[in-house]
Amino acid sequence: MAIDRIRSDHYRIPLPVVLSDSTHKEITHFELIATRIGTTDGAEGLGYTYTVGYGGGSVHSLLTRDLPDLLLGAEETRIEALWKEMWWRLHWVGRGGSAAFAMAAVDVALWDLMGKRAGLPLWRLLGGADPTVPVYAGGIDLFFTLDALLEQTSGNLDAGFEAIKMKVGRKKLSEDVERVAAMRDYLGDGFALMADANMGWDRPRAIAAARALAPYDLVWLEEPLEPEDVAGYAEVARIGTPVAAGENFHNLQEFSQLIAAGGVHYVEPDLACLGGITAWMKAARMAEAAHLPVTSHGVHDLHVHLMAAVPNASYLERHGFGLERFMENPLLIEKGRAVAPERPGHGVTLNFDALEEYRVS
Amino acid sequence: MAIDRIRSDHYRIPLPVVLSDSTHKEITHFELIATRIGTTDGAEGLGYTYTVGYGGGSVHSLLTRDLPDLLLGAEETRIEALWKEMWWRLHWVGRGGSAAFAMAAVDVALWDLMGKRAGLPLWRLLGGADPTVPVYAGGIDLFFTLDALLEQTSGNLDAGFEAIKMKVGRKKLSEDVERVAAMRDYLGDGFALMADANMGWDRPRAIAAARALAPYDLVWLEEPLEPEDVAGYAEVARIGTPVAAGENFHNLQEFSQLIAAGGVHYVEPDLACLGGITAWMKAARMAEAAHLPVTSHGVHDLHVHLMAAVPNASYLERHGFGLERFMENPLLIEKGRAVAPERPGHGVTLNFDALEEYRVS
Repeated sequence: MAIDRIRSDHYRIPLPVVLSDSTHKEITHFELIATRIGTTDGAEGLGYTYTVGYGGGSVHSLLTRDLPDLLLGAEETRIEALWKEMWWRLHWVGRGGSAAFAMAAVDVALWDLMGKRAGLPLWRLLGGADPTVPVYAGGIDLFFTLDALLEQTSGNLDAGFEAIKMKVGRKKLSEDVERVAAMRDYLGDGFALMADANMGWDRPRAIAAARALAPYDLVWLEEPLEPEDVAGYAEVARIGTPVAAGENFHNLQEFSQLIAAGGVHYVEPDLACLGGITAWMKAARMAEAAHLPVTSHGVHDLHVHLMAAVPNASYLERHGFGLERFMENPLLIEKGRAVAPERPGHGVTLNFDALEEYRVS
Repeated sequence: MAIDRIRSDHYRIPLPVVLSDSTHKEITHFELIATRIGTTDGAEGLGYTYTVGYGGGSVHSLLTRDLPDLLLGAEETRIEALWKEMWWRLHWVGRGGSAAFAMAAVDVALWDLMGKRAGLPLWRLLGGADPTVPVYAGGIDLFFTLDALLEQTSGNLDAGFEAIKMKVGRKKLSEDVERVAAMRDYLGDGFALMADANMGWDRPRAIAAARALAPYDLVWLEEPLEPEDVAGYAEVARIGTPVAAGENFHNLQEFSQLIAAGGVHYVEPDLACLGGITAWMKAARMAEAAHLPVTSHGVHDLHVHLMAAVPNASYLERHGFGLERFMENPLLIEKGRAVAPERPGHGVTLNFDALEEYRVS
């Protein structure tokens, strides 16, 4: 078989609730870029990536202007080679950035085709044995009032979540401490609680925060620093609370250097910004080799397969962008665990008719 | 004053000769993305960046969709703050990649405005004392025959160049050695000759090449490895021939880690892919603090100002894309030195009428 069709669509979608974190402040929209790749036998694979509101057009431009002729006519199972060809074609403007997102959309579509051809869901195709994965609810709630934060938490408990992540990184550290203390009090000792600073601190403030939050038994403190500050991560990681990082990494080198520096405990790649499933699996293997658990960020309907496939999975993030509004079969969560579907490929079907009103290009 | 206009144009331009290097193989076109920023007093600044044929649409999309509302209404002299605002707006799809190119186009236009407002050329505005800089002719000639290579070299000598760079990274190392030996023979002992592998080798081959080329007294061996292989650069740098690297770096962290590892002797930022003059100057200062000379890559009409301004300048690259066809005042080269102009700002005027036939968007 060979690839004989590729189309990419770009949507800008309002969020159901305005979200907030320390980097992006208020997030009112996200962008979805979806790529459909067809093969000569009539099969179709679906890939997609997303942005936090900016840059989707640049991803779409790469997908429509720069990659189709490289893909058309190629055998769709040659994923590793196609990945490298895309990497080198986009290298000058790539090595990360929008290129990593465009490659992710293509790569996911190719893996979807591979699963469909094999008649296997991705978690089985990748060698997994158990489709269930512990899942946490990721709140994007930095500027929620304490009441709204607890109300959201109550909803998450009602929905059966056994792990919850909240945002930190408010102007005053004392407010972060107060909110984390209130959440710990509300959830009780031993409940899995994570906190995410979204790069909101510089090194001295991150160290102060890691010390101040130490009594609250967080599963992890996420992105205390900008992703470039490798030495700073190593310093914060030594304070005591485990550190999670990786959602902003767009190539594998960024993972290898942070792991080598001892700056991360929970390795957190996001396939949508790392070049897809091919790259995510390599990051997960790197973590495994370093005796570190892997977690995920974003696009949980895809990550649930990968987390179910690797032996060092910790928690899957249930991401809060509400993409399930456009899905036939949203992620199933049972007893605090996400369940990867038995449908071949990744099993996600997007409702393109419903998306139409949000089309940009 | 405040910014009240911004327009960006994207062109795809055939090269006068087909160029070749070990990464891009044959390069038939380059893309030019030009941004003009106007202020309320009627002044206009020009910025531009380029690609090796792919990805220009993604840069243009960022410049037209994602950045204008951030810039419009802002005081145009607040360059450092605007740079940071662009960095954070594009952060999720950025930290390099197309975002670094888009930011470069804006940043150059802002510095051009600053120079015009001060009535000073950039090299003076940045504190320089001497507008002349040693320059080398950068050949993109890996697949030229030996005769064509020597003929090109003869032309460069006739044009007064006192330093020349050639490509290496052919399939057989013996061919590289033969070509470097022929060039050394042709140019004579002591003539400044550089060789550029454009990431064409893996670590074992790079080490073998550095050893084999050691007898030919190269000023530097450029990009023996992929830019991510920091440890590999440190290994090659210890062999004896100085190493140049940096043209593929899209953020400052990449410079700081390679410098810290001892993997580079000639620090080689390209402002067009590093986020502009603001970032280039920081990379040059980083090199200075590490006792390393700085060189440049690409857009020599802009870099000549910066090289004339910093105390640790080595050679300016005279880049081979032929952008001078669209310039009123191409770079002046006298007695082996490039001369930064006295015109305010960067002093480059593009002939947009002549560019029109190459417009993409």
